[in-house]
Amino acid sequence: MKKVGVAILGLGVVGGGTYKILTDNKEYFKKTQGLDITVESVLELNKERALSLGVPESNIASSISEVISNPNVDIVVEVIGGVKVAKDFVLKAILSGKSVVTSNKELVAKYWHELEAEAKKMGVGLYFEASCVGGVPIIRTLIDGMQANNITTLKGIVNGTTNYILTKMTEDGADYDEVLKEAQKLGYAEANPTADVEGFDSTYKISILSSIAFNKKVPYEVVSREGITSITKEDIAYAKDSGYVIKLLAIAKNSDKGIEVRVNPALIKKSNPLASVNDSFNAVFLHGDSVDDIMLYGRGAGALPTGSAIVSDVIYAAQHTKCYYAPFKNNATADKTTKFVNDFETKYFIRLTLENVVGTISKLTAVFAKNGINLTYIKQDPDNEGNAKLVLITDLAFESSVNKSIEKISSMKEVKSVDSILRVED
Amino acid sequence: MKKVGVAILGLGVVGGGTYKILTDNKEYFKKTQGLDITVESVLELNKERALSLGVPESNIASSISEVISNPNVDIVVEVIGGVKVAKDFVLKAILSGKSVVTSNKELVAKYWHELEAEAKKMGVGLYFEASCVGGVPIIRTLIDGMQANNITTLKGIVNGTTNYILTKMTEDGADYDEVLKEAQKLGYAEANPTADVEGFDSTYKISILSSIAFNKKVPYEVVSREGITSITKEDIAYAKDSGYVIKLLAIAKNSDKGIEVRVNPALIKKSNPLASVNDSFNAVFLHGDSVDDIMLYGRGAGALPTGSAIVSDVIYAAQHTKCYYAPFKNNATADKTTKFVNDFETKYFIRLTLENVVGTISKLTAVFAKNGINLTYIKQDPDNEGNAKLVLITDLAFESSVNKSIEKISSMKEVKSVDSILRVED
Repeated sequence: MKKVGVAILGLGVVGGGTYKILTDNKEYFKKTQGLDITVESVLELNKERALSLGVPESNIASSISEVISNPNVDIVVEVIGGVKVAKDFVLKAILSGKSVVTSNKELVAKYWHELEAEAKKMGVGLYFEASCVGGVPIIRTLIDGMQANNITTLKGIVNGTTNYILTKMTEDGADYDEVLKEAQKLGYAEANPTADVEGFDSTYKISILSSIAFNKKVPYEVVSREGITSITKEDIAYAKDSGYVIKLLAIAKNSDKGIEVRVNPALIKKSNPLASVNDSFNAVFLHGDSVDDIMLYGRGAGALPTGSAIVSDVIYAAQHTKCYYAPFKNNATADKTTKFVNDFETKYFIRLTLENVVGTISKLTAVFAKNGINLTYIKQDPDNEGNAKLVLITDLAFESSVNKSIEKISSMKEVKSVDSILRVED
Repeated sequence: MKKVGVAILGLGVVGGGTYKILTDNKEYFKKTQGLDITVESVLELNKERALSLGVPESNIASSISEVISNPNVDIVVEVIGGVKVAKDFVLKAILSGKSVVTSNKELVAKYWHELEAEAKKMGVGLYFEASCVGGVPIIRTLIDGMQANNITTLKGIVNGTTNYILTKMTEDGADYDEVLKEAQKLGYAEANPTADVEGFDSTYKISILSSIAFNKKVPYEVVSREGITSITKEDIAYAKDSGYVIKLLAIAKNSDKGIEVRVNPALIKKSNPLASVNDSFNAVFLHGDSVDDIMLYGRGAGALPTGSAIVSDVIYAAQHTKCYYAPFKNNATADKTTKFVNDFETKYFIRLTLENVVGTISKLTAVFAKNGINLTYIKQDPDNEGNAKLVLITDLAFESSVNKSIEKISSMKEVKSVDSILRVED
């Protein structure tokens, strides 16, 4: 039976889950995979934590050199997070001839090209299923299940923290700040939530996934990014009222016009399968020219779900002689021939406060019409103070035309405030 | 660049889709997969059909010997359907050293063990992603994405025809016979619909999928099977009224009690993600001990979606040296140590017609109580003729206890008829 030695760098939440799966299932993997997998080494400075997880003291390494000089280690699992140390360690592992499995989306989004170039030179594998959408095998699906397709659309909820926050805001009618605090208390959001709530995390993931799906480098820097911090309970209530829920979506489209890639909150119809993806669950929808529509749904984070993806990569790395190297020129930047769309065409949800005087809606709609924008939904709620809340939903419209319309509308004396502008993805 | 020669046996719907994908994307596969794939041979007795799809006349074979003696053919795609001829051709292909890709669920469910034994001897691959759930890469996910898991539950809508029929019955309030006729006219159901509507097709698929998921042979003969032919529009209306939709489910569970595997119509809550899988879409939900819940959703049939799975297998076969051979003893029958559950424990939906006299419900509920069955929903609709329609939903109950209760109830003079007994899967 083939023996496989694994090292785990970092025994945090995901490292701990990975250690547990690998050790608890040692006999199961012998039987089902024909592999005798042993965790030979663990790099964890908090020795107490390692011991409490059952790591034998002799297997606790205190430096990366100790790990990579261990001849019994074939595969190094990096679950430290961050990029500086992680990159250094991963490169050292590769250069000493070990295959690497990582869950680090930021590392892959920023340095995939560099790590892959070294891995190629050394003839080792570089695997990162766990970097995107936790336990959901989306990268394996793209690489080994969707080869027959030109994929034209990827659309997903790929961040558990923001989905938890938006779900709670929807269910409880609560405000963002309130729910964020609760999420932090429960461990669903970090003390510094920026990476999640400002959409950086989703940006890394859609960069990785769209590069694989479109067979072209889509650098994370080109991803247009909006977070969820300005979403209010009023937005959610008005969206609900018109049959929508608000989700943070990561979207990538590839068409003749070029590649459109963005992370933004959006209204989606309640009948859309993504609308019922709640709490910390994630889902990715894709459209391919042969397969039509596919959706994968599952837990986007957590010790064991993410550990499941890491261990899947460990087993895959041990069994397959074909390493996954991107079939495109994997540079830091996009290929010069790759066109990117900047003026996105989507539907819009616009919320305004108006003076409640006859003729205002007519003036407003004339502005949209002048900019070539068709309105599909108009709803006005007068209040007792002579004002009215107006909700508009547009048909497909270019961002530039919407901005032009909003600029004009904002200057009208009947318009008290433009309260919200959000995209709509049916 | 590696050259790959493919033969396609049968140019029906799926064969035609496969031919189209392979030929239209020849350049794309060179670029993205590093493979130069050519359809070298096509076995299709309807020569006109082959020519109309653009097959060069010189590539149209008229016998299986012509195909397998062609040294340029590396991989044989079987999309004839049926089992007799298909089995003969597949064995011939294997014995002449070709890897085989098939979409034939009946063939795999019935003869996987035999085909695999020959493939092993010959050192060739046997791939059948397209046999289950069309374009959805469920087999690849089980084999290459879920290795870290003990999978305990598979639950899915795996037949497009029945899902189309049940969706239409739900949407239009129409009766089974009426919708079946429409489905036949549209090509969604065959002239002889038995394989689909009686659940045989789902039985083959859940046998294949659960064998892979549980790492044990689960022969199709042990699958308990009920079709949808006795579902009425009244069942659907009453289910809707209590917050459910009716779907034909294929279910496999693996626990300490043994393996439970069955195909049956069932009520599922509207909030269940499977409830919104409509028309000819399919979905498979699975639960693993590490990954928790995962769901895959997509088109369960059709020329291009199924072709997508076949071409994925062709590419996988060409790229991977690791053939998939089941890691368990792949016999025709289950291993002697495999326990199967026969007395299933589920919730039940029971519809009765009663005489509308005081005390009847009390008598009825006493019968259930005596058999240890808890009722969670009771609704009575009196009519104008002194009768009442009663709908009951039970908590988890053994089939044997439910049968005992029904037997007793049927003999009560107040009970005019037992109109429907269906399982409920939340």
